[in-house]
Amino acid sequence: MSTQTTTSGRDGRVEAALAALRTQTIELPSWAFGNSGTRFKVFAQAGVPRDPFEKIADAGQVHRHTGVAPRVSLHIPWDRVEDYARLAEHAGEHGVTIGAINSNLFQDNDYMLGSLTHPDARVRAKAVAHHVECIDIMRATGSTDLKVWLPDGLNYPGQDDLRSRQDRLAEGLAQIYAALDEDHRLILEYKFFEPAFYAMDIPDWGTSLLHCLALGERAMVVLDTGHHAPGTNIEFIVAQLLRAGRLGAFDFNSRFYADDDLMVGSADPFQLFRIMHEIVRNGALAPDSGVNFMLDQCHNIEPKIPAQIRSVMNIQEATAKALLVDAEALHAAQQSGDVLGANGALMDAYNTDVRPLLARLRESQGLDPNPMAAFAASGYTETIVAERVGGAQAGWGA
Amino acid sequence: MSTQTTTSGRDGRVEAALAALRTQTIELPSWAFGNSGTRFKVFAQAGVPRDPFEKIADAGQVHRHTGVAPRVSLHIPWDRVEDYARLAEHAGEHGVTIGAINSNLFQDNDYMLGSLTHPDARVRAKAVAHHVECIDIMRATGSTDLKVWLPDGLNYPGQDDLRSRQDRLAEGLAQIYAALDEDHRLILEYKFFEPAFYAMDIPDWGTSLLHCLALGERAMVVLDTGHHAPGTNIEFIVAQLLRAGRLGAFDFNSRFYADDDLMVGSADPFQLFRIMHEIVRNGALAPDSGVNFMLDQCHNIEPKIPAQIRSVMNIQEATAKALLVDAEALHAAQQSGDVLGANGALMDAYNTDVRPLLARLRESQGLDPNPMAAFAASGYTETIVAERVGGAQAGWGA
Amino acid sequence: MSTQTTTSGRDGRVEAALAALRTQTIELPSWAFGNSGTRFKVFAQAGVPRDPFEKIADAGQVHRHTGVAPRVSLHIPWDRVEDYARLAEHAGEHGVTIGAINSNLFQDNDYMLGSLTHPDARVRAKAVAHHVECIDIMRATGSTDLKVWLPDGLNYPGQDDLRSRQDRLAEGLAQIYAALDEDHRLILEYKFFEPAFYAMDIPDWGTSLLHCLALGERAMVVLDTGHHAPGTNIEFIVAQLLRAGRLGAFDFNSRFYADDDLMVGSADPFQLFRIMHEIVRNGALAPDSGVNFMLDQCHNIEPKIPAQIRSVMNIQEATAKALLVDAEALHAAQQSGDVLGANGALMDAYNTDVRPLLARLRESQGLDPNPMAAFAASGYTETIVAERVGGAQAGWGA
Amino acid sequence: MSTQTTTSGRDGRVEAALAALRTQTIELPSWAFGNSGTRFKVFAQAGVPRDPFEKIADAGQVHRHTGVAPRVSLHIPWDRVEDYARLAEHAGEHGVTIGAINSNLFQDNDYMLGSLTHPDARVRAKAVAHHVECIDIMRATGSTDLKVWLPDGLNYPGQDDLRSRQDRLAEGLAQIYAALDEDHRLILEYKFFEPAFYAMDIPDWGTSLLHCLALGERAMVVLDTGHHAPGTNIEFIVAQLLRAGRLGAFDFNSRFYADDDLMVGSADPFQLFRIMHEIVRNGALAPDSGVNFMLDQCHNIEPKIPAQIRSVMNIQEATAKALLVDAEALHAAQQSGDVLGANGALMDAYNTDVRPLLARLRESQGLDPNPMAAFAASGYTETIVAERVGGAQAGWGA
Repeated sequence: MSTQTTTSGRDGRVEAALAALRTQTIELPSWAFGNSGTRFKVFAQAGVPRDPFEKIADAGQVHRHTGVAPRVSLHIPWDRVEDYARLAEHAGEHGVTIGAINSNLFQDNDYMLGSLTHPDARVRAKAVAHHVECIDIMRATGSTDLKVWLPDGLNYPGQDDLRSRQDRLAEGLAQIYAALDEDHRLILEYKFFEPAFYAMDIPDWGTSLLHCLALGERAMVVLDTGHHAPGTNIEFIVAQLLRAGRLGAFDFNSRFYADDDLMVGSADPFQLFRIMHEIVRNGALAPDSGVNFMLDQCHNIEPKIPAQIRSVMNIQEATAKALLVDAEALHAAQQSGDVLGANGALMDAYNTDVRPLLARLRESQGLDPNPMAAFAASGYTETIVAERVGGAQAGWGA
Repeated sequence: MSTQTTTSGRDGRVEAALAALRTQTIELPSWAFGNSGTRFKVFAQAGVPRDPFEKIADAGQVHRHTGVAPRVSLHIPWDRVEDYARLAEHAGEHGVTIGAINSNLFQDNDYMLGSLTHPDARVRAKAVAHHVECIDIMRATGSTDLKVWLPDGLNYPGQDDLRSRQDRLAEGLAQIYAALDEDHRLILEYKFFEPAFYAMDIPDWGTSLLHCLALGERAMVVLDTGHHAPGTNIEFIVAQLLRAGRLGAFDFNSRFYADDDLMVGSADPFQLFRIMHEIVRNGALAPDSGVNFMLDQCHNIEPKIPAQIRSVMNIQEATAKALLVDAEALHAAQQSGDVLGANGALMDAYNTDVRPLLARLRESQGLDPNPMAAFAASGYTETIVAERVGGAQAGWGA
Repeated sequence: MSTQTTTSGRDGRVEAALAALRTQTIELPSWAFGNSGTRFKVFAQAGVPRDPFEKIADAGQVHRHTGVAPRVSLHIPWDRVEDYARLAEHAGEHGVTIGAINSNLFQDNDYMLGSLTHPDARVRAKAVAHHVECIDIMRATGSTDLKVWLPDGLNYPGQDDLRSRQDRLAEGLAQIYAALDEDHRLILEYKFFEPAFYAMDIPDWGTSLLHCLALGERAMVVLDTGHHAPGTNIEFIVAQLLRAGRLGAFDFNSRFYADDDLMVGSADPFQLFRIMHEIVRNGALAPDSGVNFMLDQCHNIEPKIPAQIRSVMNIQEATAKALLVDAEALHAAQQSGDVLGANGALMDAYNTDVRPLLARLRESQGLDPNPMAAFAASGYTETIVAERVGGAQAGWGA
Repeated sequence: MSTQTTTSGRDGRVEAALAALRTQTIELPSWAFGNSGTRFKVFAQAGVPRDPFEKIADAGQVHRHTGVAPRVSLHIPWDRVEDYARLAEHAGEHGVTIGAINSNLFQDNDYMLGSLTHPDARVRAKAVAHHVECIDIMRATGSTDLKVWLPDGLNYPGQDDLRSRQDRLAEGLAQIYAALDEDHRLILEYKFFEPAFYAMDIPDWGTSLLHCLALGERAMVVLDTGHHAPGTNIEFIVAQLLRAGRLGAFDFNSRFYADDDLMVGSADPFQLFRIMHEIVRNGALAPDSGVNFMLDQCHNIEPKIPAQIRSVMNIQEATAKALLVDAEALHAAQQSGDVLGANGALMDAYNTDVRPLLARLRESQGLDPNPMAAFAASGYTETIVAERVGGAQAGWGA
């Protein structure tokens, strides 16, 4: 390959990257703007929203400064309001729309031993009814994704019967799926452990996928990057779910140990790049790919809006690097068994400093090239700290 | 529940356990009788077999003293012989039959970068042809299980394309499946890592199951108890694969860290009990369940025949405990949400000393109640140490 | 060894085990009787204590039915009362005494970014002052152990300077140590992760030990069985700390994944046995060994008093098994390199059903042989559910 | 801080980084140039050395093209030669010197159940004597570091007595230490698991450090980046050992799962950067810091000399990034509790593309800015493939 071709190839990749980055969108979670913490302590922060309207206003700030975060996920009942149409309208006023509706199966006293898997049919019916409510909210807000994360599980061996719980789960999911409209999707998350400590009822992608396959074509798997066993190769799962046509969404965050819910890209930026490489290589970055790129994070000690901005930027940087991979050179090295060459082709993109490229992207969109600085300079933080006095701050659980 | 009923219930469980234990069979791996080790060193042991015939003779000893190990898995090419019918006959003379035929995709130089997933079509065809040879050996030996463990994977990100490798794998497996006879099964193993250190091409049960589903009804998953990420709940996978009707076989062994291949039941006997509890609860212990209970172990520092005897006994003990679970009491506690009661019902069986029960079983079968002592007293070790002089000892890789 | 000798050896071991078990004591944590949960939800239970006095009353029940739990650890400020002498007296009325005083460095808003390691000297001084208060409480209650668990750590790389934090920590601990009376000990706990998710300031036994060595002879390490990386060999650490003369105490509990705080012995009873084997082998079960055997558990979904009783019984059972190990046979097999024989000697004790032995122990002490049944029959639960109405239930954090 | 100051600060950091990078040295392992593999297979590569002289010649190539690899570690007995003075002279002819002498305690049949910890005093004496031989080789080659990695451990609980093994180990190490010259160091490695699968006799830094403290001031800990439990924060250990004045050396490599021995920086380049950040922050990069930066890798499937070049470059890149950290800004953010700002200061350096800086460094040293390309163009590979025909290739174990 001549130097000239390479240069032109690189320039071409840069332009293609810019074009692809312009189409990328990331969905923000409303709960990231409320207080959160560990079982040990929730530290309150000044200016934190007191209701769903304020959460959405904060999310709008992230979009305003980054240009890639046009949707907000809601969590029910935390984001229950009287008038959902009004909430959607309010979102529009802040430049965003309502994204996925998240159900909650872990904060009602009835769910101590399970929800959709509970031995008691009454509790299971209640959990199904909760989803019917969520589907109504989808209709009222224009949301099309019903996101189900199942906290159900066991703390002790023998506590309940693993097989029966799968059967009950399948039955409950089928009832929920049947309640969806035709343009709705059910996206089903899995998690390795927590809040249950012996067995989760959907602990891995295989279990989630089996239930999705049984439900139908509009049931898709949600991959939360913090929900795996130590050492799990997450990009492999991404590739596998894309091959099966069942990767519905990401819940992005970072972990060093468990489901730490740190800012995405902060613990292992190379892993995030590898994930985005599989996304790009399999054509799943395209807006019509059906993959919803969402954040799911807890900003326990850092200010929440800047933390969301940083997270969005981290995904953009990983995506930009993935878009800069010289796919042709990579493929040639792979085909010829050139281990170091193939790895080198990937690393060459990873080692590139893409911040200038993203600055260029933002400027071309009329944005400040440095969203963190722009937000800090905007005075928004000072405003909400001053204004949001009185009332109960929203917490992770409220 | 009255005390009388309970007592009679316990007696009934003991009798039912004895009946079930009489039907249990465990398959031994021929390679467990050869030398094995780590990448650091293979320590040779005196008396180790020098050919497949001697391996089978040793396996026959395990069955002779335990009465539950009537089959021996072969590994090709390690167990290649001129005349497979003669080998099967030889097995019969030692009281055993030929079990699963294991293919080998990791010791040919061509497979350095993969076998069924290799970028080069020539290598993939060679890997398929190897399985056709294995299927011929199945016909010659009466084996009905073709066991495929795929060592393929990548050491470095970018080294090859994850998705393309899945596509190639699917194609190769389909060719192999097509070559099977109607009474043959393809049983497909997964492994978390090793020998590849970045990505395995079948790293988890989900991947193995997806390929089995694509292949057809006679493709089943093999669960090796050492092939999971740290903390993985293995009995959950057992329950899940049984629910899907796709648990084809176990490769039993123990691990503390990685794929340590220690004696089954030696690292976490409680886990083994929980696995057998799922087996019993889901009716998969029955001879016609389609689940093949195999050992896959490396006795690096302990003598091999006694280590196999101990392993077989460990499975028997875990099975006996699982059979003693008071299913009725367990179910009642589970249904009523009695966490401690349900856990207690399970633990009550686990804490039982079942060695007298198994001694009774053996005596009823004309066996010595203590297989370890009986083997030691038999003089077999002394005989093979004296006789097996000269020739090359069989190793894990030969 | 003749059969006769063996039998007599076994009888001798049983009698010695009974004698040793009579001297064993286990310390209960006051907070185990309050409500607890995960970051997702704390499920309240009926009858839960509303103040430290009621917690101690509940702890007294555990001792009453097991006979081995004569001390209760307090946690400050959760167990703050006006009159500590009265609290100690109250304990005596319930048959127990006050054990270790636990400080709390995680629930004050000032501690969001650290306590003894905080960049701000004012916060560090506050944390030291809190321990001076705890030492006063030790004097008032007769406690001799000041237990320090350091929740300090970082969530993000770069958040603070690892080395400076160690220096600050050393300085703060020295100030606390200097405030102790001569008959006081400082026992210092370590934890792998949580509540911090990138780096804990005392993440491992090595760090705790280094600080203890710098402090002086009355500084000892606390080993919480749930505070290690996956796969860590805990009994090795036990042996190592005993060799160094610095194992001050256990916080017993169980884990499958992280710091799950399940009932001790419920996740891996074989591990608990191996830990107790090191304790027995190194003479650390003796009352004057300086090792304080404490529970530290969260009963999120199971009733608390029975869960503590079960936990105490689990330790007793593991201890009894460890005491039944035929040390002579074990040593002989170890010395002769008999891998299977040595392992078999250990497993023989583990596989023994020691429940009859413990029933005998209890009966000899005038206790019901079945503490779970005895407590259930006592009516205590019904009484506290009826009486403890109104007021705020104590929680893990209160 | 004004923009001008910042710019000048950045320029100053770049110059300081260049100066520091000029002093950096990395030691290469002779065994990295021989064939290596897993327990499943060692794949041979053309041109691999057939003796220690050829290994050193290959190592010289790495130094020739990178300028930072002037030493080669030897491994005894793999690198046994008749005339060690001649070997040292040969090294000099290839531009390098002899670094650490590595003893081998795992490939002699006597060591199956341990070496320095073996129950049999004869085996322990043999292991000590082996180190005396290594010390003689140090004298003959001018090496000053005796590196001891202890493979000893147990596969089964009960197999040997954990405490006795520590006592034997302490005794053996003391004998070895006593045999050192005054300018010699004993550097003692630890490893989480493998080749032993239940308990290693030096599994963690705490154990290694305790032995070093007992030995004396010239006993130091070796940190192999692949020898930890999943999730372990390695840079914390680096900081801790530096604080204790006992970090003697690194064995650099990468891992995803176990001790994978991949190229350093290939699995988690961010972690490598964090490690180098602690090195730089604690002044341990300086040539007189006493920290020996060594590689310890197995190039199972990639060509060995380029893999070593790439590894050296990866360390250089991580070091350069660490040197570019704006320490003043970082410190200020840390002191003020600015979590995002402090993290951002670190990430700013990490996200910098330092390849141009390193190209500049190399050019200033008369080297090709692209060592990989320069080596490929040199024709060395073709030469050794053609010339090294006949004889036995060196393997990891030879």
